[in-house]
Amino acid sequence: LSFVPITSNPKDKNNKQIKSDHDIKKMVHSIKVGISLVLVSLLYILNPLFDQVGENAMWAIMTVVVISEFNAGATLGKGLNRGIGTIVGGGLGCLAAIFAQSIGGVGNSIFIGTSVYIFGSVATYFRLVPKIKNRYDYGVVVFMLTFNLVVVSGARPGVKVWELARERLLNILMGFIIAICVNLFVFPLWASDELHDSIVSRFHNLANTIQGCLEECSKTVKENQPDTSFTVCKSVLNSKSKDESLANFAKWEPWHGKFGFSYPWQKYLKIGEVIRELAALILALERCFQASKKITASLKQPKKVQLEQCEAIGSRIVWTLREVGDSMKQMRKCEGRDNTIDKLKTTREELSLVISTSMIEEFENGEMLPIASLVFLLMEVVEKVGELVIEVGELQDMAGFRTR
Amino acid sequence: LSFVPITSNPKDKNNKQIKSDHDIKKMVHSIKVGISLVLVSLLYILNPLFDQVGENAMWAIMTVVVISEFNAGATLGKGLNRGIGTIVGGGLGCLAAIFAQSIGGVGNSIFIGTSVYIFGSVATYFRLVPKIKNRYDYGVVVFMLTFNLVVVSGARPGVKVWELARERLLNILMGFIIAICVNLFVFPLWASDELHDSIVSRFHNLANTIQGCLEECSKTVKENQPDTSFTVCKSVLNSKSKDESLANFAKWEPWHGKFGFSYPWQKYLKIGEVIRELAALILALERCFQASKKITASLKQPKKVQLEQCEAIGSRIVWTLREVGDSMKQMRKCEGRDNTIDKLKTTREELSLVISTSMIEEFENGEMLPIASLVFLLMEVVEKVGELVIEVGELQDMAGFRTR
Repeated sequence: LSFVPITSNPKDKNNKQIKSDHDIKKMVHSIKVGISLVLVSLLYILNPLFDQVGENAMWAIMTVVVISEFNAGATLGKGLNRGIGTIVGGGLGCLAAIFAQSIGGVGNSIFIGTSVYIFGSVATYFRLVPKIKNRYDYGVVVFMLTFNLVVVSGARPGVKVWELARERLLNILMGFIIAICVNLFVFPLWASDELHDSIVSRFHNLANTIQGCLEECSKTVKENQPDTSFTVCKSVLNSKSKDESLANFAKWEPWHGKFGFSYPWQKYLKIGEVIRELAALILALERCFQASKKITASLKQPKKVQLEQCEAIGSRIVWTLREVGDSMKQMRKCEGRDNTIDKLKTTREELSLVISTSMIEEFENGEMLPIASLVFLLMEVVEKVGELVIEVGELQDMAGFRTR
Repeated sequence: LSFVPITSNPKDKNNKQIKSDHDIKKMVHSIKVGISLVLVSLLYILNPLFDQVGENAMWAIMTVVVISEFNAGATLGKGLNRGIGTIVGGGLGCLAAIFAQSIGGVGNSIFIGTSVYIFGSVATYFRLVPKIKNRYDYGVVVFMLTFNLVVVSGARPGVKVWELARERLLNILMGFIIAICVNLFVFPLWASDELHDSIVSRFHNLANTIQGCLEECSKTVKENQPDTSFTVCKSVLNSKSKDESLANFAKWEPWHGKFGFSYPWQKYLKIGEVIRELAALILALERCFQASKKITASLKQPKKVQLEQCEAIGSRIVWTLREVGDSMKQMRKCEGRDNTIDKLKTTREELSLVISTSMIEEFENGEMLPIASLVFLLMEVVEKVGELVIEVGELQDMAGFRTR
């Protein structure tokens, strides 16, 4: 059994680095929003501009405030949703208002009330459909709002509906342009980068967790050690909703240099899914480690050798995970993918031989269960890592990673 | 070893029931929003009302559209956020505008620009602080919006700032009242109910999953069976963000009859956390079951007896989970909590004796690992269920469940 050396644990330093990076990004975003707000306020502050746009400038301000989100993709998505919602809602609202004006009298009011009710209910129902909710929720809200405002104000006698709609739309467009320019062209914070980095960091975090367990297992028991690895697994397990929203935003960032057009974000979600399954296994594995840690101190020499074999094999899993994570980070093709999978198969077989029935007889009752499960779960982890290698390989093909 | 009989699997029926209930709730919500919109549109449609409120009625419509959320708590929370954000933003905006007017000239514009920048940046930074983001995100957005609109429009010469602010606030209040009345007093959809039911159903779902595994394990292998239990565990694992948002909304529903004031929602989140850890264990357990299922068909009689013992013990875990879930559902105290915990301890000890080292010798190499891990993981599940019993017990004390 070959032993791959494990380098010192870089987890804490990395996580601190990530955290301070995120703090800086928060500052940058805050400053950017401040700048966008000042720019859009110029519509009011500068008299020549105000003479042009008038009170409708408030729609520009509203747009900037509402669509300025942290990630570039979120801003773009919300902005487009707002634009399309306004156009569709405004258009339908104008038609309904003109039709209502042509009826006149009490029929006018009844028609308006009915159309408000029908469009409001149907749009609200659409908002509850998961697929629409994920990508177009804000657009539907804006549609409802615009339709309502236009139909009720436009149906009042003497109001020029089309002019009102056109001016508001122009102002929303101005707000949109200002927010998008500041958000996308000045230090843009891409959701695609965040998703990519977050998936990559999970490979390393889980690798570190396994390594930490292996190292602790071979030492004697230390009390009161903080259970950091446990929290890492749990944060990975709880990553689904964040992944999904980031992927949603990333899809609005189609031209973003590093990732190109129609980048396979769906595959990232699939990889995240497999990583979460892996994390669940590692969580169970940790309980085995903890249980077997208690007994290793009292183990005699020949049994310790068996545990050390487990560790040696475990370190190969750690190495594979890091390798796959690195290849994803640098966006290059993993060398010898089939080779890696073959190696994992061998690893699995070796594991199944570490503790054979004949050897298990030497163990006492309480010792046997955790150590046998440790071996079994390590085998399952190996299988899951194999699945991960295949998924990442497929991503590398789909996204056209370079071969070094 | 006592064997507790297992009733037929009620999972599918229950889940269908829950789904159609949810569909009806969606319809109810859509109709309610339609009604609120018609009510608020009356401000425009009825001439006497329009003469009173004028163009400012659009703020009432906007409020209704934006705060009408699915759950009562969400609507109340958003409404209060909107109200407070408007008052604070409007108040500060008025002060800044009046001060700017008193400066006059170029200083006026510079002062406005600076204050827009500072308030915008600081508020945006606050929005990125997790605690504020969770509960007050919308309030901060409305604060930014109102402050900006008031300061820029109010600073224009000849504008009566206070009057503008007062009228808009009154209109927002009208929208708020309409939305709240329809949302809270007509078939209210409480987030607290949803959170409570969703946590309770997880007890049953996980119990069904364990039961399904136990039953399948004792049968011979069936190919191509849909892996439903697997998806149940995964949906439980991914429940964190939904739980958190529901708890957030539930906190805005303080007077809701069934749950009373300052109900311990935080404890629900803790219970959800433990359930997720349990689900991770069960996910690993399922892999053991699958591995051992393959070999049980070829097992000889004396070994089968051992597996059947495991199943008998497993069925007690199922029973305990159901019992705890039922006591939570009916909001009554679990009878004999200490008794239950003692029983679980006994169960754990019995499990550790099911497969002793001497018995394991009879197994062949490939058989031993999955079966030993199955027993070990069942022991871990028992421990986690014990943790759950304690947490639920604490909830029952905190929330003052009745003793039957």
